[in-house]
Amino acid sequence: MGDLGRLQVGIIGASGYGGVQLVRLLKDHPQIEVVYLGGESSAGKRFSDIYPHLAHCIDLKIEAIDLDIIAERCQVVFLSLPNGLACEMAPKLLEKGCKVLDLSADYRFSNLETYSSWYGVERSDEQVATTAVYGLPELYRDRIANAQLVGCPGCYPTASLLALSPLLKQGLIQPESAIIDAKSGTSGGGRQAKTNLLLAEADNSLAAYGVAHHRHTPEIEQICSELAGHEVMIQFTPHLIPMVRGILATVYATLRDPGLVRDDLITIYQAFYRSSPWVKILPSGTYPQTKWAAGTNLCYIGIEVDPRTDRVIVMSAIDNLMKGQAGQAIQCLNLMMGWEETLGLPQLAFYP
Amino acid sequence: MGDLGRLQVGIIGASGYGGVQLVRLLKDHPQIEVVYLGGESSAGKRFSDIYPHLAHCIDLKIEAIDLDIIAERCQVVFLSLPNGLACEMAPKLLEKGCKVLDLSADYRFSNLETYSSWYGVERSDEQVATTAVYGLPELYRDRIANAQLVGCPGCYPTASLLALSPLLKQGLIQPESAIIDAKSGTSGGGRQAKTNLLLAEADNSLAAYGVAHHRHTPEIEQICSELAGHEVMIQFTPHLIPMVRGILATVYATLRDPGLVRDDLITIYQAFYRSSPWVKILPSGTYPQTKWAAGTNLCYIGIEVDPRTDRVIVMSAIDNLMKGQAGQAIQCLNLMMGWEETLGLPQLAFYP
Amino acid sequence: MGDLGRLQVGIIGASGYGGVQLVRLLKDHPQIEVVYLGGESSAGKRFSDIYPHLAHCIDLKIEAIDLDIIAERCQVVFLSLPNGLACEMAPKLLEKGCKVLDLSADYRFSNLETYSSWYGVERSDEQVATTAVYGLPELYRDRIANAQLVGCPGCYPTASLLALSPLLKQGLIQPESAIIDAKSGTSGGGRQAKTNLLLAEADNSLAAYGVAHHRHTPEIEQICSELAGHEVMIQFTPHLIPMVRGILATVYATLRDPGLVRDDLITIYQAFYRSSPWVKILPSGTYPQTKWAAGTNLCYIGIEVDPRTDRVIVMSAIDNLMKGQAGQAIQCLNLMMGWEETLGLPQLAFYP
Amino acid sequence: MGDLGRLQVGIIGASGYGGVQLVRLLKDHPQIEVVYLGGESSAGKRFSDIYPHLAHCIDLKIEAIDLDIIAERCQVVFLSLPNGLACEMAPKLLEKGCKVLDLSADYRFSNLETYSSWYGVERSDEQVATTAVYGLPELYRDRIANAQLVGCPGCYPTASLLALSPLLKQGLIQPESAIIDAKSGTSGGGRQAKTNLLLAEADNSLAAYGVAHHRHTPEIEQICSELAGHEVMIQFTPHLIPMVRGILATVYATLRDPGLVRDDLITIYQAFYRSSPWVKILPSGTYPQTKWAAGTNLCYIGIEVDPRTDRVIVMSAIDNLMKGQAGQAIQCLNLMMGWEETLGLPQLAFYP
Repeated sequence: MGDLGRLQVGIIGASGYGGVQLVRLLKDHPQIEVVYLGGESSAGKRFSDIYPHLAHCIDLKIEAIDLDIIAERCQVVFLSLPNGLACEMAPKLLEKGCKVLDLSADYRFSNLETYSSWYGVERSDEQVATTAVYGLPELYRDRIANAQLVGCPGCYPTASLLALSPLLKQGLIQPESAIIDAKSGTSGGGRQAKTNLLLAEADNSLAAYGVAHHRHTPEIEQICSELAGHEVMIQFTPHLIPMVRGILATVYATLRDPGLVRDDLITIYQAFYRSSPWVKILPSGTYPQTKWAAGTNLCYIGIEVDPRTDRVIVMSAIDNLMKGQAGQAIQCLNLMMGWEETLGLPQLAFYP
Repeated sequence: MGDLGRLQVGIIGASGYGGVQLVRLLKDHPQIEVVYLGGESSAGKRFSDIYPHLAHCIDLKIEAIDLDIIAERCQVVFLSLPNGLACEMAPKLLEKGCKVLDLSADYRFSNLETYSSWYGVERSDEQVATTAVYGLPELYRDRIANAQLVGCPGCYPTASLLALSPLLKQGLIQPESAIIDAKSGTSGGGRQAKTNLLLAEADNSLAAYGVAHHRHTPEIEQICSELAGHEVMIQFTPHLIPMVRGILATVYATLRDPGLVRDDLITIYQAFYRSSPWVKILPSGTYPQTKWAAGTNLCYIGIEVDPRTDRVIVMSAIDNLMKGQAGQAIQCLNLMMGWEETLGLPQLAFYP
Repeated sequence: MGDLGRLQVGIIGASGYGGVQLVRLLKDHPQIEVVYLGGESSAGKRFSDIYPHLAHCIDLKIEAIDLDIIAERCQVVFLSLPNGLACEMAPKLLEKGCKVLDLSADYRFSNLETYSSWYGVERSDEQVATTAVYGLPELYRDRIANAQLVGCPGCYPTASLLALSPLLKQGLIQPESAIIDAKSGTSGGGRQAKTNLLLAEADNSLAAYGVAHHRHTPEIEQICSELAGHEVMIQFTPHLIPMVRGILATVYATLRDPGLVRDDLITIYQAFYRSSPWVKILPSGTYPQTKWAAGTNLCYIGIEVDPRTDRVIVMSAIDNLMKGQAGQAIQCLNLMMGWEETLGLPQLAFYP
Repeated sequence: MGDLGRLQVGIIGASGYGGVQLVRLLKDHPQIEVVYLGGESSAGKRFSDIYPHLAHCIDLKIEAIDLDIIAERCQVVFLSLPNGLACEMAPKLLEKGCKVLDLSADYRFSNLETYSSWYGVERSDEQVATTAVYGLPELYRDRIANAQLVGCPGCYPTASLLALSPLLKQGLIQPESAIIDAKSGTSGGGRQAKTNLLLAEADNSLAAYGVAHHRHTPEIEQICSELAGHEVMIQFTPHLIPMVRGILATVYATLRDPGLVRDDLITIYQAFYRSSPWVKILPSGTYPQTKWAAGTNLCYIGIEVDPRTDRVIVMSAIDNLMKGQAGQAIQCLNLMMGWEETLGLPQLAFYP
């Protein structure tokens, strides 16, 4: 039955890190009530069996996934599932009138061929997919406000695109010169037990992975191409960092106009993000620490110009589970509901 | 008095991380005996007052620095001091017949103006400085073998140059396209108490620093220019990683011949480093973890080519205190003494 | 001038970890406005010069400490200073009508001789000190509600006393058998640069410190004695853990009645803390993770009985900067103002 | 065929952390050659497929386990397998003349009923089991020297027993007062992927586990009882620490003679371990850091007496994979072969 007046929200795939962040954040959201948690392997368990520390706040069972029942009880559904599952559920939920926010890659691509070739999943929901909006509010605020289906961006693309967008949109760089060297905490790999994510393996070590082949590459390129007005190839290299949370994207690009100095670019970025409450442009000479964003939906951006090489170096820091995942999804929902973009989302970092 | 037949070695600046690594490594070296430890702030203390866990192995006092006495007792002196101090001691030690290995920046530059403009230290030892050899054995093995004074490379330049050298030497890349995105554990910052290196600050966080201005830039450029045969500008960005040891350099460059594939480059690197026992080229598709090098003098190199962008991405991993500092200095000494390059240095990682 | 109707609050010693937590938490508190930040070494700086990531929220300068001015502007003052300074400021602030919450050890002791012998500070404010209330709401809720001056407990005593109190109050254990083996993240050591708190030193390592001599011992004993009704000696050993935040206290004690089983004790603890919203007793067989409390004002308690040894083992987990410091101070202020004890304090952990 | 004159050694279960430590250490051992690596799930792979960083040193395939073949090729076999498997292999290997060192719990118990009730494994090799020697050289040097089958101690028992033995052997404490609060890095949990050992879960957190029920309890008690001369019950609590390696055991016990002071006990411990090169008693007021032992086979012991409570607090630090596992096994082998106890084992820590 729930709290009258509050938006009734469900989460399918509640037991992973995306799920637990959504639950935590939505619990503190003044306009939302979480009325349904769904899962497959965890169906039947109480949410607090998996996360005992939330027992005092969340008294819900994880239920088996029955889309009819979900649609009856929820006005909005978050899908936090492995790639290839959302596209089988979203069409039905939409048909029944739910708004859907998908945290997987399924609805991030306007071109399903790109999706299929990088993700190896065949799709039959092309019509629905074309209605999906890419959930990066700083670029697509208006589209999101009118969407029924939002494909929330990946964590790396969020950090990368927020760093690159002003440069590409305003034609300030040679697009093909862009290199994104990204670094992520291990929570980006999810809560599944994998050997390489063990503390004994990942702590006190550092490595690149998916070099030249990571699936977030075409997602970044899709938006960069749209911003640049033509097809753009981007170099993207992710690294696994011995920390739990946080992404830092260090972005390199060659300036078209070598006369631009750091403060010019800071001014340009400030203007570009003037209406974006979740992006903070740092003052001259200050570079972002991922820790500054921990637990918040913020993206901190630092800018440097190397006059010796005519390159701009942009560093963007986010919390990969917040602005990079669950926080951004709620930011999108705020827009879809006509609420303040900042509603219910933390903006003061868990620091130190 | 010392062990007859062993080389009598002294370390000035024994109390920092460079010093303690030297002490540990030299203790296990079959041809060397450490007979002198010197320091300023720590003079008068026993070495084991600072490092109690080494009391059973090292029974030396840290003595005040008297170059005459040092030169009498030592055939070889390692200088592990802040920048700007070695250049005041090395000339006298050399004059008295010692071989000198300096771990600071003082003797890394063939052009002292470059040194002075980046380090802010005026120098009057130009004649001595011109006799110094840059201590990167993989490039300058012969020069080192004949040197009396070796300026040991910085940790970042070591990782960066080992990754870049084959490409530059053989003209495979556009030199000005080279970007080095480097990541280091916090021990690179030394053992001095600084707020930003506190665990509470640096753990679970990540940031770039010295962007476009780090002092290792001209050092890297000097050697790159020599390899390329003309002046080269390099983009170099260091990052502080929440781990104790290790450097990973991720190097990007545009290939001159877009027809080159990954396996071509692996073959080229293997040939280039054929006589270099401390460099290991990884097989196709394997990228180095810094943990693999921990505690060893090894450099692991992984190579990827992105045929979409015509870029090569080279990743090199070292232990910043070993191949990046004390281990490399001993490797140089081995060469100077005509010993096996691998003598007394560990090659099996402390793993996990 | 401030927000009409909100409580005007000042913080002296705003630049350390206690200060930054207070600022962050008070910023989100619905009834409070921070109108003054004071400091010595940092006077004149903007708060955002020290913590750039809070620039969008906190636009205050750190001012030199002038008690007259502070008392004019603030109804409540938090003191977050090294030991021995609060006792020189609190009397004057109280005299001028401020409520004072001190985060140091200065007002934790009912017996100033104990304080002086452990802290080496002579005191002349005995009269004021006797009016101070020990700020552990779970034990002294009523006293705090009526206090003008609260001495907020140390981080270790908070975790230790919440674990021990039900046992001592109800005479369930032999008090002299109690052993507290406590483990803390390094942020407990503050933001001052100290060598032993460097990431390179403290990470991937573990050690006890202050064994048999730590200053939190007499603080714990004072309250334990009051609960037991007679003088009690406690064994307390703190350890430094390679993590930023969190305390786990593992408490051992011999049961008076060996017939008591785990579930009996769980029931007793639940009853003891029934009116304490910030203490959560975990179900049978579940032990607390410090991570569960991270960022919240909660204390999680797990209980085990070993029928082989007739010992009870109680584990309590808190965030040392929240329930162990700033959060608890605000919980006290809530009580002093007659507000809900939970007002404005986070209860959903920053997890993972 | 192997190196003539060297001892031919095999390792069954080579792919886990115990295995990789054995391989690394034995590689550097002057009297040993590793000629066989065996495994089940990894059979058929090259060792360097699992550990690419060792490719330059170890060129062996992991073979399926055929005891006949192993016994033909190896004079000594290390078993590094899950509990319950060694007891099926050791009898046959012994029968064929091999010396066997087992790293599991299978041969640690003189009483197989204790083993079976705590480990849930039925055993039919009682006769063989009674010939097994408990592989803690500091207590059983002579027995080990004459053994064909050694059951190497667990990591926690090693740290615990080295801390407790002098006290129990010399009747200095009330045995039933002994409490062991032990803390271990996560590599103690092995290389199997488990959710609770993920960096995202285990980092920046801390918890006890197996409270009052951990399987190392009866192992510790068995040796303590032998030392005390009567049945002894011990309180043992392990904790998971956010670090890769290391164990610290903090041991509490009540002194029988309250007149004993710290320096008395230090003298007693020094005498007790006089012939034990791998145990180092720290000077007054110095407590061990686990980092000091990292990578070595050393155990550092610090001692404190609390005259207020008449308790002794002993802290022992080891590297759980070295003195706590593989290093100790090799120390045992050294004894079995009549070699120096220190042969081939590192004693200078990987520090920092």
